[in-house]
Amino acid sequence: MENTTILRDLTQLVTNKKWAELRAALSPLEAVDIAERLMELWDTRQIAPDSLALIFRILPKELAAEVFSEMDSDLAQVLVQAFSDSELRDIMSELYMDDAVDIIEEMPANAVKRILQAVEPDTRKTINQLLNYPDDSAGSIMTTEYVSLRPHMTVSDAFDRIRRTGPDKETVYTCYVLDNSRRLIGIVTVKDLLLAPDRCTVADIMESHVISANTLTDREEVAHTLSRYAFLALPIVDGENRLVGIVTVDDAMDVLQEETTEDLEKMSAITPSERPYTRTGVMSLFMSRIPWLMLLMLSATFTGMIITSFEDALAAQVALTAFIPMLMSTAGNSGSQSSVTVLRSMSLGELEFRDIFKVLLKELRVSLLCGAVLAVVNFGKMYLVDVLLLHNTALTVPVMAVVCLTLAATVIFAKLVGCTLPMLAKKIGLDPAVMASPFITTIVDTVTLLVYFRFASAILNI
Amino acid sequence: MENTTILRDLTQLVTNKKWAELRAALSPLEAVDIAERLMELWDTRQIAPDSLALIFRILPKELAAEVFSEMDSDLAQVLVQAFSDSELRDIMSELYMDDAVDIIEEMPANAVKRILQAVEPDTRKTINQLLNYPDDSAGSIMTTEYVSLRPHMTVSDAFDRIRRTGPDKETVYTCYVLDNSRRLIGIVTVKDLLLAPDRCTVADIMESHVISANTLTDREEVAHTLSRYAFLALPIVDGENRLVGIVTVDDAMDVLQEETTEDLEKMSAITPSERPYTRTGVMSLFMSRIPWLMLLMLSATFTGMIITSFEDALAAQVALTAFIPMLMSTAGNSGSQSSVTVLRSMSLGELEFRDIFKVLLKELRVSLLCGAVLAVVNFGKMYLVDVLLLHNTALTVPVMAVVCLTLAATVIFAKLVGCTLPMLAKKIGLDPAVMASPFITTIVDTVTLLVYFRFASAILNI
Repeated sequence: MENTTILRDLTQLVTNKKWAELRAALSPLEAVDIAERLMELWDTRQIAPDSLALIFRILPKELAAEVFSEMDSDLAQVLVQAFSDSELRDIMSELYMDDAVDIIEEMPANAVKRILQAVEPDTRKTINQLLNYPDDSAGSIMTTEYVSLRPHMTVSDAFDRIRRTGPDKETVYTCYVLDNSRRLIGIVTVKDLLLAPDRCTVADIMESHVISANTLTDREEVAHTLSRYAFLALPIVDGENRLVGIVTVDDAMDVLQEETTEDLEKMSAITPSERPYTRTGVMSLFMSRIPWLMLLMLSATFTGMIITSFEDALAAQVALTAFIPMLMSTAGNSGSQSSVTVLRSMSLGELEFRDIFKVLLKELRVSLLCGAVLAVVNFGKMYLVDVLLLHNTALTVPVMAVVCLTLAATVIFAKLVGCTLPMLAKKIGLDPAVMASPFITTIVDTVTLLVYFRFASAILNI
Repeated sequence: MENTTILRDLTQLVTNKKWAELRAALSPLEAVDIAERLMELWDTRQIAPDSLALIFRILPKELAAEVFSEMDSDLAQVLVQAFSDSELRDIMSELYMDDAVDIIEEMPANAVKRILQAVEPDTRKTINQLLNYPDDSAGSIMTTEYVSLRPHMTVSDAFDRIRRTGPDKETVYTCYVLDNSRRLIGIVTVKDLLLAPDRCTVADIMESHVISANTLTDREEVAHTLSRYAFLALPIVDGENRLVGIVTVDDAMDVLQEETTEDLEKMSAITPSERPYTRTGVMSLFMSRIPWLMLLMLSATFTGMIITSFEDALAAQVALTAFIPMLMSTAGNSGSQSSVTVLRSMSLGELEFRDIFKVLLKELRVSLLCGAVLAVVNFGKMYLVDVLLLHNTALTVPVMAVVCLTLAATVIFAKLVGCTLPMLAKKIGLDPAVMASPFITTIVDTVTLLVYFRFASAILNI
């Protein structure tokens, strides 16, 4: 309650220059809430860059850095220009490395240069290293700030070290035990340390069966591993098992959410964007949607050409036209049921390419059942509704047979294509989510029409 | 590497009765890995119930409970029958309350009775309380095992208490400060405690600005709050702000993944199930898919009836038929772009019902752009490809005008319906995800045909 009041009246407090009051009011708030309100004020042009910089100046250092790390890249850029050199250095030195890198990645070259000049040489080196990891890799989301322990330390040595080095670390609750060559030989949690007698050594209580990931592991896979084992952080090692960073659970959660949003967007024929819908402009929305709509519209040329080439057949049996939408949509729905199921199962790490034959067999059996049931129900519906109720005399038994056979055949086809395409796409390095929906529909539509007219000419002799 | 070998040879180790070896080999493994392998062996009938019970008997108690909590409900049921009373009591007393409740919720009455008889009276009472919370509420996923502190405690008192009560708690890293009436007055992290001088009191260092949720808050909202603030746990309070439980980050992650899978399934016209695809049988898959396919197939009766009633018009202008699939699929794609975007934005908590007019205005502007561009491109494509290249003489300018006007109008309509329906659905208590895809397609298909034939009869006088 109180939160919303403070944030709502933010501009007024700034205008009235009530700095002490503002600092006291903002300090207990969460960084993300402050950041969101500032972005809202910025979007609606209610705050000027220098007022923004002022607010950052009065915030406690750590909070200021956290708020900064929650900013969208465009506002972060404005701030980088508005900050003095020393302010910029202060903020950057408070930031965790992974957040610093996230911000820098999105910035134009001149802003990046300003930031890298402002920070300490050591930080600059680390940032440059982290920037070099591929976009979707564990390296790109890890932080280099973790607590490391040595095996011979006693429990109280370990606590001393945590107390000394902890304040700057993103998490202190999982500590990493390294040998002389910085190779990861075990992990110890603060809970283990708290429950162990003081004279124990780290080696006595550490878990030496460590689950870790490589710097180049896909970030989604890292997030799934964290979630699977309910870890608070996952150690990231290089090729020689040397610890180079950790990925924390909050970042893993963000990754999962982002990847899900991306998959959903691709499946709905939208080019993914990083910005939330509420903060995306009309032109950006348009640009992310129009290419796919156009591509899919033009690919529908095939269905048009097929219908045109069977114009005479359709003129001879006008009743056939009425069932085209039903056939196409049923086949499309069947296909997307399979493709979405398989896609989700793949992104949850339950399915691998080697399972493809098992999946095909399962989908074949499901599709035979679905195809048969739908064909029978549709035959019944056509007979009861169209023939008996609506007296549609054009619907002879052969015509109904053509419709129902097409229905069964295309449902089976759609399910088999639907489950295969995402798996094949991933195998050959294409995006399974893009393949999952828009493309399958186009293929299924085309095949449905071809099958329909083939059955029609065979059974009705047209 | 070594993991997979042990798990692969599990049945052999059991057959050879190498208990000591088996215990040593399994102990360092993660519970979820063991559970998964056991379920695999069970599914493929490679292991008998008594061998399963044997494996549980040799596992360290805590690990056994964790493995049990990872089991699917059908296998958990088999185990409940195979365990002796004392084994069942041991396992249940090691389980965290939220895991115990999760398992019990899925069990048939006789198994539940057995479990409740086996546990201690206190545990039974807590379980019964937790079972009473609605399915999707915070209460249903919270655990009652947290560390509570009192404000007057010193830092070393607090550590003593954590050491004493910690072993049974799901997390010790966030501790909850309660007053005499168990009202939540602050939180303290172990990091705060570690970094504070020993003589400080809890009240000195606690954060009294606590973000919490109510027992009846939607579990998805709880998960989003945890993710938004990067918390390790969220306190759950009753109406009087008394602490009743906590939701930990690992459970929040599971909730987010489950809810996403459910939404995806609903959007693809599938009845959601809790089991992973790989462990779902053909009949269950069929049953989760066929009702929707049938419903959508039967609802396509409308499109069929519309086409039938315009048969004469179509016979007069056969060229019109060829564009029906393209018009329907373009409108459908436009609609699902909007509905999926809005739906995702709603489930990420970015959009509320009160934003509906802002959303409508934005989508209107996007759809005007999309509609206009698609109509123009399609006109060009028809002229260049169909008329000039394929010499389709039936495509007169008025016919092309009908197609392009329909295209623009239905793209706009589809986007507006697409963004409105999920928001309205949520407002009136229906499922936005179900409304998002299958139903919108049916509405859009029907309207597309009506608009098409209306334009055709107005412009072509048929």
